[in-house]
Amino acid sequence: MNNNTQPKLTSYNKKLEHSYAFGAFPTIEMLKARPRHAKKVLYHSDWIDGGQLRLLRELCDPSSIPLEENDRAVARLRQKDSCLVIGVFEKYASPLKSEANHLVLVHPSDMGNMGTIVRTCIGFGVRDLAVIKPAVDVFHPKVVRASMGSLFRLNYAYYPDFEQYRRENPGRNLYSFLSNGRVDSHTVKREKTEVFSAIFGNESSGLDDSFLDVGTSVRIPHSSDIDSLNLSLAVGIGLYALTVGSEP
Amino acid sequence: MNNNTQPKLTSYNKKLEHSYAFGAFPTIEMLKARPRHAKKVLYHSDWIDGGQLRLLRELCDPSSIPLEENDRAVARLRQKDSCLVIGVFEKYASPLKSEANHLVLVHPSDMGNMGTIVRTCIGFGVRDLAVIKPAVDVFHPKVVRASMGSLFRLNYAYYPDFEQYRRENPGRNLYSFLSNGRVDSHTVKREKTEVFSAIFGNESSGLDDSFLDVGTSVRIPHSSDIDSLNLSLAVGIGLYALTVGSEP
Repeated sequence: MNNNTQPKLTSYNKKLEHSYAFGAFPTIEMLKARPRHAKKVLYHSDWIDGGQLRLLRELCDPSSIPLEENDRAVARLRQKDSCLVIGVFEKYASPLKSEANHLVLVHPSDMGNMGTIVRTCIGFGVRDLAVIKPAVDVFHPKVVRASMGSLFRLNYAYYPDFEQYRRENPGRNLYSFLSNGRVDSHTVKREKTEVFSAIFGNESSGLDDSFLDVGTSVRIPHSSDIDSLNLSLAVGIGLYALTVGSEP
Repeated sequence: MNNNTQPKLTSYNKKLEHSYAFGAFPTIEMLKARPRHAKKVLYHSDWIDGGQLRLLRELCDPSSIPLEENDRAVARLRQKDSCLVIGVFEKYASPLKSEANHLVLVHPSDMGNMGTIVRTCIGFGVRDLAVIKPAVDVFHPKVVRASMGSLFRLNYAYYPDFEQYRRENPGRNLYSFLSNGRVDSHTVKREKTEVFSAIFGNESSGLDDSFLDVGTSVRIPHSSDIDSLNLSLAVGIGLYALTVGSEP
């Protein structure tokens, strides 16, 4: 695809080769981070832009990305969202960097959580996400929306199982986060030069006990008044502990 | 009120003297933590209980709390929620403990966030929440729901402004979390015997700069790729840093 061959603008489903960024802010992030994959920007006549339309134009024009007022298309594509701006982009591959830290999510199943986690991940400087299937679709508009567009700054790869991830990404220090992990998160001391993979299970079941022997198993201490921390919080604290919190 | 004078079961609004726990799990938490304030438990005939009905009965019977199948009341009260069990409880006062650590939220405005924050707070052993007005209603069913019932384990108090909180709660170490705080969160070293108040601003604007001089101002380091951490994550990391992370 290039900008001249426009995709058919139908409601999102996983099989489409394109997806949608709902909202002006995520659309701007998309145009900044992935201009080559931007196809079109639509806005609704109800939109009161407060200066963003000009920014959109400045980002679209140099790459000849169409920017059009189209109330019907916006109303049709946004489904339950209330957005008045939609960025259309083609899906892209963006392979993981072997020299960078990775977040590994095993069977993530909630799209809103996934988006929040992506934003948190970018917030702690981790830009490479491995997803072990079955898992949510990273390009679903709900994920893009919940990530506030930070998804576009991320490299990602899907793997059919954890073993394949491990085989294809050797020579890394692995940290598996489990409620019964052997090391408390705040006592982990990392070497500055180490490259890590932080591994988390899904929202309801976490990682299974086989991960107790995958690298260092880490526990985030919390009170017994709650069963577990929610996944996006656990990822946030885990990445904080491995990056900011464990500086030698 | 006592269990014999039943409240009129109308859709929730802030002025009611009672509120609702939506879902079996939050209702069980309510019955366990606040049995004296439980008024009634309703369930829908579509409910497939998996053993929870017996537990509800064991919790209700000793206190003569009515437990009734009532499809119409459940359908009317739950509004957009999909729950099949509703716990009715009267609102209660539960003053802050001066010898305990406090979380202070200045103008929190999002009910879902509030519930998530309450659960996080309980997760790090902080059971006392001060709320500076204007702010969301802690007893709104959406807050109860998002807290997964952990709200019932919390002491809370509202204050018209931060100065009043400070006057009524002297002798505490204050930590104000701001994106331009002077001390990095992972370098804060607390004394074991110290009692703290962790202070956070609202979702969109955070704390204003006057809080740079309120106790120790703390910054949670994050990458410049995102504007800020979301509030519930910031509270989670802040409480982690002050409790688990700063053990001497």
